[in-house]
Amino acid sequence: MEHSFIAWAKQRAARLPKVKLGIGDDCALIGADSVDSSQFDLAITTDSLCDGTHFILTECGAQAAGRKLIAVNLSDLASMAATPVSVLLSLCLPKENSGDLAAGVFDGVYELAEKYRVSIAGGDTNVWNGPLVIHMTAIGKIPLGGSWLRSGASPGDAIVVSGTLGGSILGKHLSFEPRLELAAELRRLGLVAAATDISDGLGIDLLNVTVASKCGAEVWLDKVPISEEAKRCAQQSGRSPLEHALGDGEDFELLLAVSQENLARLPAEIGGIPLTHIGTFVSRTGLWSKDKTGVKQLAPRGYVHG
Amino acid sequence: MEHSFIAWAKQRAARLPKVKLGIGDDCALIGADSVDSSQFDLAITTDSLCDGTHFILTECGAQAAGRKLIAVNLSDLASMAATPVSVLLSLCLPKENSGDLAAGVFDGVYELAEKYRVSIAGGDTNVWNGPLVIHMTAIGKIPLGGSWLRSGASPGDAIVVSGTLGGSILGKHLSFEPRLELAAELRRLGLVAAATDISDGLGIDLLNVTVASKCGAEVWLDKVPISEEAKRCAQQSGRSPLEHALGDGEDFELLLAVSQENLARLPAEIGGIPLTHIGTFVSRTGLWSKDKTGVKQLAPRGYVHG
Repeated sequence: MEHSFIAWAKQRAARLPKVKLGIGDDCALIGADSVDSSQFDLAITTDSLCDGTHFILTECGAQAAGRKLIAVNLSDLASMAATPVSVLLSLCLPKENSGDLAAGVFDGVYELAEKYRVSIAGGDTNVWNGPLVIHMTAIGKIPLGGSWLRSGASPGDAIVVSGTLGGSILGKHLSFEPRLELAAELRRLGLVAAATDISDGLGIDLLNVTVASKCGAEVWLDKVPISEEAKRCAQQSGRSPLEHALGDGEDFELLLAVSQENLARLPAEIGGIPLTHIGTFVSRTGLWSKDKTGVKQLAPRGYVHG
Repeated sequence: MEHSFIAWAKQRAARLPKVKLGIGDDCALIGADSVDSSQFDLAITTDSLCDGTHFILTECGAQAAGRKLIAVNLSDLASMAATPVSVLLSLCLPKENSGDLAAGVFDGVYELAEKYRVSIAGGDTNVWNGPLVIHMTAIGKIPLGGSWLRSGASPGDAIVVSGTLGGSILGKHLSFEPRLELAAELRRLGLVAAATDISDGLGIDLLNVTVASKCGAEVWLDKVPISEEAKRCAQQSGRSPLEHALGDGEDFELLLAVSQENLARLPAEIGGIPLTHIGTFVSRTGLWSKDKTGVKQLAPRGYVHG
């Protein structure tokens, strides 16, 4: 399978932007024409998705899994303010139907590679006695010093999220758009002090930012933008829509720290995606929630303790 | 598990060479101090290893699997004449014992990362309902124009292999040394026209070089360096030691094209690793074997057809 798949993939990838040496040798080569390191830092991220955990192959199909794989990786690049350059794809394929699965995953990857002008520079295929596991490494570039780190938040900075949160299991976890265009516009505006993407859930990802930034965060519960899907999930789960918004994860929205000075210049939306001010970073470490009943500790999983 | 593992891994990796931003954010950042792209190309390779296919976890343990993972990736860099800079590690861990497995794989990776002064720049951990799957992306640098491609062989060039071949299943497939030092010395000497590493077997990997170089290859069967392990395998398998040497794979030795002009300057060994002239690239496409009975077609899997 591998040789014919590689030949097919190489031909398909030829329509995408190119690297110096793409699919088919022992390594891909990325040359100075793609990334001029006197001007740019390289951002590199890697993610694996497993059948049964991150997608259900029999429900969504291989193409949706491949699309999710590249979207997750591009979301990591967006959250660093990086512009994607290349991706590498590695497949662990079940023996049955391996050729069709490989092509399906590739097609899903191709969809967003084409949309965001990313080269598919190489990869690896394996057939094994197990379910589908797909891996990607994505490489992006960021103008020197322009990257958004988790460690950049300061007490007093506003907590801002893009889009709406919760209930991604109803479909968004597969179909979401990585916030590359939003990130590019925010980078152009120069408004962001720290960022991450919401993969594990607002609570956990916000905690990650506070730990990296050596501060705490206070979330204004009535400001959290709750998705329609979170409300639908709540009808079944016995948990509140807010809890779904705080804890579900896989929203792949941007979570940003914006200084009070820059907050006045932050648009309410960019390209139709709302930007919502949901709280403030504080000097007291930990996660805190604030509503009309007062300030309480907030568990990262999104359950609000009294 | 993930947070404590990441904290542990970050601390361990701190003793290795550093990148601009390592483990713990959404992406790793590789800065101009690591790779000056006005001087270097970036080589990037990715490989996945699956329990039951590339290693047997219950037999070899997690550390040996991790060591193999980085060795396979570094072997790909060596075969392009690249110097390793960074690796990223992505783990799909079975639920049972996931913390110990993650630490074991990391320790195996660390062994060769330390030896070859490579940074562990980041990664991803997942727990799932399946066997251990481990994935790595490795990044190296090559002085501009200095990379060895599969496509660089010409008719008349000598076919040269390092080490001895066959029977790696008896242990070498886990314990092999990636030929980074050999590659660095050969690059310094400027003798190599094309290269790959022997992962699928001499026959298949040589075929890959001939296809990329649009030529053929004639292998002198009595010159192929057969390992002791190939002879031991032959005692059980009913196949000849030569067949094992041609077809077993996972030798992770270098397969080189060396011009006749450079051949005279090629050392017989470098650092104790023999370099053996086993044939010649020819203009007639395909794989050919030559012995005292004449020239015959050679099937890439190593079986010699009459």
